[in-house]
Amino acid sequence: IRTVGVLTSGGDAPGMNAAIRAVVRTALSHGLKVRGIRKGYHGLLKEEIIDLSARDVSDTIQRGGTILQTARCKSMRTTEGQQKAAAICKKYGIDALVVIGGDGSFAGAQQLANYGVKTIGLPGTIDLDIACTEYTIGFDTAVNTAMEAIDKVRDTSTSHERCSIIEVMGRDAGYLALWCGIANGAERILLPEEKENFDEAALIQDIMANKRRGKKNYIIINAEGVGDTINLAKRIEEATGIETRATILGHMQRGGSPTCKDRVYASTMGAMAVEMLIAGKYNRVVGYKEGEFVDYDINEALSMKKKISNHQYEISKVLAL
Amino acid sequence: IRTVGVLTSGGDAPGMNAAIRAVVRTALSHGLKVRGIRKGYHGLLKEEIIDLSARDVSDTIQRGGTILQTARCKSMRTTEGQQKAAAICKKYGIDALVVIGGDGSFAGAQQLANYGVKTIGLPGTIDLDIACTEYTIGFDTAVNTAMEAIDKVRDTSTSHERCSIIEVMGRDAGYLALWCGIANGAERILLPEEKENFDEAALIQDIMANKRRGKKNYIIINAEGVGDTINLAKRIEEATGIETRATILGHMQRGGSPTCKDRVYASTMGAMAVEMLIAGKYNRVVGYKEGEFVDYDINEALSMKKKISNHQYEISKVLAL
Amino acid sequence: IRTVGVLTSGGDAPGMNAAIRAVVRTALSHGLKVRGIRKGYHGLLKEEIIDLSARDVSDTIQRGGTILQTARCKSMRTTEGQQKAAAICKKYGIDALVVIGGDGSFAGAQQLANYGVKTIGLPGTIDLDIACTEYTIGFDTAVNTAMEAIDKVRDTSTSHERCSIIEVMGRDAGYLALWCGIANGAERILLPEEKENFDEAALIQDIMANKRRGKKNYIIINAEGVGDTINLAKRIEEATGIETRATILGHMQRGGSPTCKDRVYASTMGAMAVEMLIAGKYNRVVGYKEGEFVDYDINEALSMKKKISNHQYEISKVLAL
Amino acid sequence: IRTVGVLTSGGDAPGMNAAIRAVVRTALSHGLKVRGIRKGYHGLLKEEIIDLSARDVSDTIQRGGTILQTARCKSMRTTEGQQKAAAICKKYGIDALVVIGGDGSFAGAQQLANYGVKTIGLPGTIDLDIACTEYTIGFDTAVNTAMEAIDKVRDTSTSHERCSIIEVMGRDAGYLALWCGIANGAERILLPEEKENFDEAALIQDIMANKRRGKKNYIIINAEGVGDTINLAKRIEEATGIETRATILGHMQRGGSPTCKDRVYASTMGAMAVEMLIAGKYNRVVGYKEGEFVDYDINEALSMKKKISNHQYEISKVLAL
Repeated sequence: IRTVGVLTSGGDAPGMNAAIRAVVRTALSHGLKVRGIRKGYHGLLKEEIIDLSARDVSDTIQRGGTILQTARCKSMRTTEGQQKAAAICKKYGIDALVVIGGDGSFAGAQQLANYGVKTIGLPGTIDLDIACTEYTIGFDTAVNTAMEAIDKVRDTSTSHERCSIIEVMGRDAGYLALWCGIANGAERILLPEEKENFDEAALIQDIMANKRRGKKNYIIINAEGVGDTINLAKRIEEATGIETRATILGHMQRGGSPTCKDRVYASTMGAMAVEMLIAGKYNRVVGYKEGEFVDYDINEALSMKKKISNHQYEISKVLAL
Repeated sequence: IRTVGVLTSGGDAPGMNAAIRAVVRTALSHGLKVRGIRKGYHGLLKEEIIDLSARDVSDTIQRGGTILQTARCKSMRTTEGQQKAAAICKKYGIDALVVIGGDGSFAGAQQLANYGVKTIGLPGTIDLDIACTEYTIGFDTAVNTAMEAIDKVRDTSTSHERCSIIEVMGRDAGYLALWCGIANGAERILLPEEKENFDEAALIQDIMANKRRGKKNYIIINAEGVGDTINLAKRIEEATGIETRATILGHMQRGGSPTCKDRVYASTMGAMAVEMLIAGKYNRVVGYKEGEFVDYDINEALSMKKKISNHQYEISKVLAL
Repeated sequence: IRTVGVLTSGGDAPGMNAAIRAVVRTALSHGLKVRGIRKGYHGLLKEEIIDLSARDVSDTIQRGGTILQTARCKSMRTTEGQQKAAAICKKYGIDALVVIGGDGSFAGAQQLANYGVKTIGLPGTIDLDIACTEYTIGFDTAVNTAMEAIDKVRDTSTSHERCSIIEVMGRDAGYLALWCGIANGAERILLPEEKENFDEAALIQDIMANKRRGKKNYIIINAEGVGDTINLAKRIEEATGIETRATILGHMQRGGSPTCKDRVYASTMGAMAVEMLIAGKYNRVVGYKEGEFVDYDINEALSMKKKISNHQYEISKVLAL
Repeated sequence: IRTVGVLTSGGDAPGMNAAIRAVVRTALSHGLKVRGIRKGYHGLLKEEIIDLSARDVSDTIQRGGTILQTARCKSMRTTEGQQKAAAICKKYGIDALVVIGGDGSFAGAQQLANYGVKTIGLPGTIDLDIACTEYTIGFDTAVNTAMEAIDKVRDTSTSHERCSIIEVMGRDAGYLALWCGIANGAERILLPEEKENFDEAALIQDIMANKRRGKKNYIIINAEGVGDTINLAKRIEEATGIETRATILGHMQRGGSPTCKDRVYASTMGAMAVEMLIAGKYNRVVGYKEGEFVDYDINEALSMKKKISNHQYEISKVLAL
């Protein structure tokens, strides 16, 4: 290979810039040329392609968001779009492409691979919902951002002896909620994975028992997939007589300067992607499993399933004592 | 006077602990006794009264919330409640009371004064909506908390070239919105003070013009008093075709470790309250005006009116260029 | 005037970018051209001059440091250097120059004014040591950075029941030390303004008395002008038998994303500088006094003297109880 | 067992409070009694022993330092001290003891085990220098604290085009330095593990080459074990003519509110320690290896050796391009 392309796709995640920077500098150090593709597959189809030098990624490792921007792209799900994307890669001399994103982005990479573009996927999502890896770029930052915001909510919740429900991101995966639940000492965590077991009457009983035990607040972390936070707050207040406030953290969880772990792991993954390409490995996804950086065939990676830790969930209940 | 009471009332605000600590230590250093009243006037009526030593306020200056907790109290608006409160002060030997809160809390203090309790009010609210002062305890922290959250929203908004509406606190006063608007480089600020001039069609025109000028996002800061952030986001997305996301920062704005200014000014005001009492000044409210700490008669303070700075609002528009 | 130049000079300070951005956008909105001069007077003499558009200052308000960079420049103190600088301004069509820096930078501006360049000075320094103003760009951020670092030192100091001396910046002015001293609840503040009154034996007595009073740590904030922090720590440990640790915060105090106040005030000052030039006012320095933005003749500004608040210093002693 | 004791020993580390809280609440939930020992083995020998309830650890998970305080203790290295400590445990009914600290603290636990006290060690140190585990309580927080401080130094270093040397903790282990080096995009990392290979002349050559390549600063991260940061800065400035500044981060790296990972992992380890005791496992040390929480015999744990990652060190060099 002579030229490596790099793009970010799907929702943005802190640490993506560290990965881009590592791809660029590792490729350059091996004598390769690097092209950045702006706005994901959408920008690829529009030929928004720029050259990247070592200086273009200076002073970016600490930045939130993605300097290449990102977008979702429906055309990339069609055969026509995929063929066009592969043709554009050829036109710009891009023999190999590093795709930073989630499962949907890897599916696009899989198709490009079918049309002869050598691809490597790097897991980038704040939701940690990629099955082939225990680490995804952005989760560590997002979970700290959410936790720090919830620490602040807790201050005011304690001052007023309120019940507070905080909605964190995670439509299908409760990792952010579970980690914040433990880290913020939440009394209750509502996970999408446990949605069908949710018993509102039991929750209300527990809130009242908690008050009798002398605790000064009751924090509920609710993953966005579970349900309507604002109305749940209203129902709790009515049923318990305890003032209850809802907070929806929203998109602030996607931004911010990445944590040390996100910078270091994203850098390592970016470097590894280029080293794999040079070693002749491609059409693979990089992951982190059992304490090591590993890689999987894209098809294998896309077929894996992942389950949330029951052990951590049980611990969270005991610690809310 | 021999014994000073201190309470926090209304919404909590970062820096209240610094003020409590300063009241306690200044009073003790003058040989006075100090009693803390928990949960505002509500706790006063329930006789939730504790002694406070210098050690009880150790390691509190950096804490969010209020160690004395706070509450709203309807009974304190009745003559019966006010008389009872004054009687309880007498019972506990509290000759003088420092009340940290907003206009509503000062109204309670004014009534206690009528029944012979010497009172000093300290302005504590994140909204900056107390007319007799240019500084209120908690505003500086809250505005930095909101600004930092909006910085994060901006990261992801730029990555996706979105429009973002962020709702900050301020039902009746747009100070938080105005300061964040300037500090976050917002394209538009919606203030309660300008509510009747709001022209949604002009806003939508501006969003589209902005995109044509090459800007990568459009940030709108909306004070909670202005209207429904979530539906406004939907209408903008429909009208402009630009992805638009709503964030409601909520109660996290009330919490968090206080900034340096909030710690220093709250400490100064707490010390000043006790010094005034010792000097025989009471039934007054402390403020900060024209670069100095000052004090006003409670009645005079409650009758003042305050206007938001038009000059800053105009500057915010030019700087969004 | 047709073209406004802008430069940052002396030590960098957070908020300088907000001021630059405001100068650029306000000037452009009035139909003026803007040139940025890199690396202060040093860069001016080397003709490191670039055009600045509204987009060039996008996404800079939240950045630490100065996008124009800065330097100290000895040549600017010579007549020859000053004449050359004025000639270069003329060559590049720069009729008016906004200089962001401290007293030394204003002295340079004063000389340029003598050679016909219309100048406005904006006070930019983390030390707050400019006599004509109660606010300088960067102080609020620096004092919060130092305070947050000292909060962390306090955690570990308490865990070990140690004495800790923390050196903050401020060679000639103790504002950073005084504010941190109050905000961190320091037991002792060593100010350059009080240097000759420093009594080490009394300090050591107080440390031992403090331990007997049951306090778990002893925090000393030392302004860098006062003396050798590391050796003072050694002498205290020897004399008291209490473990004593020195921390020198150093240059981290100059960096970091600016606080809300620094962004808002620096933006206001930047806009004001351009409005003054358009109104025909020049050879002046902008300040903040008694709650208002004001301006002074450069010569008058440079001749002013400033004293640190004795009242705050006294309060800090009482609150360390 | 009926009563579990818990103590923190050696240097404090953020997350120790999360571990204490988890020990307390897990033990209580199983019907055990919990005693807290203040100031490590030193406090044990002085019988500074308190009962701990679920409420005593409320609102502590987010606190830096250790609520039980800590100390180093020479007597515990003597047979006499060890026997006395075991006798005191017996006197207070402490059948099992959870020791949170480093290798030195585990050596003490090993001795107590010999005298019949059932012990579990939890790895607590910001240095990550415990051989039997890839995670230690406090490292994640410390590395983020250092990284954020270095981000600030970088701002001002860039503004002035300086060389900056930042000394981080780690007398014998370079993990903090290595992680910060990658995360801050440092040009050079000086590790104690590579001390004998340090070539100052080559470093100086590289600094000058770097400037010629157009980079605006040169960041060196120096682990405290490597040598004298302040004099190295002086020699570099002299040799290169480039302004060079030294920063010594010091004890602030030990404090601060723990990160999400430190809170979650410390909580998990604390819960696990109690579950092990109940399951009849003791005289063991808890670790985290290959993605799982594991445990080792204390003697085995103390005999392990650990090496820093060469791969990460190589990556750091490529990414500094």
